[in-house]
Amino acid sequence: MFEDKLSVRAKTMKRSVIRELLKLTTEPDIISFGGGMPDPSLFPTQLIADIVQEVLEKEGKKVLQYGLTEGDKEFRQQLAKRYGRTEGIKLTEENILITTASQQGLDLVSKIFIDPDDIVIVGLPTYLGGLAAFNSYGARLIGIPLDDNGMQVDVIKEHLKQLRRAQRRVKFIYVVPDFQNPSGVTMSIERRKKLIEIAEAYDILIFEDTPYRELRYSGESIPSFFSLAPRGRVVSIFTFSKILFPGMRLGYIFGDKEIIDKLVIAKQGTDLCSPAFTQAIVREIMKKDLLDGHIQKLIVRYRDKRECMLAALERYMPHDREISWTRPEGGLFLWLKLPEHMDADEILQRALKKKVAYIVGSAFYCDGSGKNTIRLNFSYPTFELIEKGIKRLGELVREEIK
Amino acid sequence: MFEDKLSVRAKTMKRSVIRELLKLTTEPDIISFGGGMPDPSLFPTQLIADIVQEVLEKEGKKVLQYGLTEGDKEFRQQLAKRYGRTEGIKLTEENILITTASQQGLDLVSKIFIDPDDIVIVGLPTYLGGLAAFNSYGARLIGIPLDDNGMQVDVIKEHLKQLRRAQRRVKFIYVVPDFQNPSGVTMSIERRKKLIEIAEAYDILIFEDTPYRELRYSGESIPSFFSLAPRGRVVSIFTFSKILFPGMRLGYIFGDKEIIDKLVIAKQGTDLCSPAFTQAIVREIMKKDLLDGHIQKLIVRYRDKRECMLAALERYMPHDREISWTRPEGGLFLWLKLPEHMDADEILQRALKKKVAYIVGSAFYCDGSGKNTIRLNFSYPTFELIEKGIKRLGELVREEIK
Repeated sequence: MFEDKLSVRAKTMKRSVIRELLKLTTEPDIISFGGGMPDPSLFPTQLIADIVQEVLEKEGKKVLQYGLTEGDKEFRQQLAKRYGRTEGIKLTEENILITTASQQGLDLVSKIFIDPDDIVIVGLPTYLGGLAAFNSYGARLIGIPLDDNGMQVDVIKEHLKQLRRAQRRVKFIYVVPDFQNPSGVTMSIERRKKLIEIAEAYDILIFEDTPYRELRYSGESIPSFFSLAPRGRVVSIFTFSKILFPGMRLGYIFGDKEIIDKLVIAKQGTDLCSPAFTQAIVREIMKKDLLDGHIQKLIVRYRDKRECMLAALERYMPHDREISWTRPEGGLFLWLKLPEHMDADEILQRALKKKVAYIVGSAFYCDGSGKNTIRLNFSYPTFELIEKGIKRLGELVREEIK
Repeated sequence: MFEDKLSVRAKTMKRSVIRELLKLTTEPDIISFGGGMPDPSLFPTQLIADIVQEVLEKEGKKVLQYGLTEGDKEFRQQLAKRYGRTEGIKLTEENILITTASQQGLDLVSKIFIDPDDIVIVGLPTYLGGLAAFNSYGARLIGIPLDDNGMQVDVIKEHLKQLRRAQRRVKFIYVVPDFQNPSGVTMSIERRKKLIEIAEAYDILIFEDTPYRELRYSGESIPSFFSLAPRGRVVSIFTFSKILFPGMRLGYIFGDKEIIDKLVIAKQGTDLCSPAFTQAIVREIMKKDLLDGHIQKLIVRYRDKRECMLAALERYMPHDREISWTRPEGGLFLWLKLPEHMDADEILQRALKKKVAYIVGSAFYCDGSGKNTIRLNFSYPTFELIEKGIKRLGELVREEIK
């Protein structure tokens, strides 16, 4: 009855591979390397209960009421202060919009910039939630291959030259510079600077998405695009999902005051405002200066889990020069490359029979390539399950090679 | 730097009058009849603190993690059960999607149905959050005048005949049937049945928005569109903002399984999922069977406040046959009509000087008419402030008449 009434957008929308797989992997005996879920044993549950009691006593009437679309003012001030400390950038609350985690950041930025057929430049691969958001507004995506230093900026330049000749407009370049999802690759400082130069020369916005930036387990931190580029060139989105918990769905956008202003109007039409209740909880965690300590705990745990997964891959994966994986300095994911002729999508069915799950790499390629790649999450499963699951996966790959 | 890159949508987006006015009215000495805020003195703060403690103890790892896009399964089952009891309709959790209150319902339904230039039929006046959502997807709006029995269905029929001749497609008819925002008018049962007949004959969806349905202070409840119409004809959105609290931003959509399925995909790209944490809190309030009792408390309070405002209007408004107001049987608003030559927008500046605020009625008219109308909220201000504020407003109107 309703199919003929759907918008063009709705007719072409596809279910998120990850969300669907997450459903499947709630079966308790499947070891899942899918999803990007934090380790739930580190959730600070008692702290939250205490803070809720306090917040409701002190400001119950305020936090249960409607709030500003921009988000709680003191919360935004805390965020500005913290960013000043960690990244050396001066911001005020007027540069910040609170969102329903980073997915809403992706949606709102798309909403204010993308008209159907506008061009957006993305990594090949890149985060599929980004691809879904851009696609839902009718963007035409151009994928740029990654190497060990991130997106190949020279390839971007070539595309831009051609597009300029064809008088086609590029709306923005989407980057996940730190421990990229899905590849785990971090963009080098040289590449970042070069990309900013190109964006300035061609007058294109850079859309920075850095959910894992603070989860670095080794190596030196590289300045963010937001701190490197001239003011107004970059819009950045962040989330508390990975550094605190996903269950309150809180994130934020940094940008020029005027861009934030447009995003606020877009959010008014989308959901009026984010919950004052959950904003107050996270704000108090920051005010009590407990966020950094919590992140330190995550770093210690996830570093060990990364080591555990790398060791298991070393032990159980066939030693074949066509099989390789990344050794990311942070984040939540390893990226596994199988021999060219293998199809991770097809193998997944057999993997599920062996009770192990992963995300097929092709989901992250806007051109449908990457069939022989796999994203592996190491933050969620226990050490024991990482070992067991990689063993199962190693056996499977061995069988497939034969 | 970014203005030339904005989408067509963003260039035409307007700030919500209400959200902007809300900001203004946080000044403590202004008496505000703007907004649609619940009475904060009735928020069940201690109950929430207790439930949070319990939820975090029992299921902290689950509620702080990512959840299903559809929403918490048990929460949806509770909602289906409750609706079966109150409206006599059999639903399952597959007919329900949890949203960020009703504004996200408006946005998601627009997202899956509206292509630029599609026609949407709305009330004249109607809820401005609906207008904002439909406009943001490029809808062309046709406004239908209201009388004491709601939207004039005969006028709709005339429009549909003409549109059919012009081969123009109508995507849906948007109705706020119970204690409509802003007018307070309730659509009669005859009108509802007639509208369903027309929607069937012309094969058009009905989009029902009923945030105040359970807040009835007098008269008999009238069956909802969702319960009256054949399955699949109606999509309904609901919110906990008015019957519990707005500060957790929770609402839901009822619809055919296939429509819910499309909405789920749209939500995946928009914000992945609503917070498992806040869903668990409201679910527990329902499971403990505390929601109905809370609504009863609201009804008693708001009924008294409605009486208080009606009495104050009677007392302080000039007795002039060009001045009238509605006497709604429920909801949060009265609708005041001033003499035709008056402009409520202009008068607002003088009202603010007198420290009283309201929402200009024209914000609710898709054709920009209604300049001489005013929406007055009676749920938020105290009895004392209702009396005082209406007195100020009455004085102002008296001055304007002279």
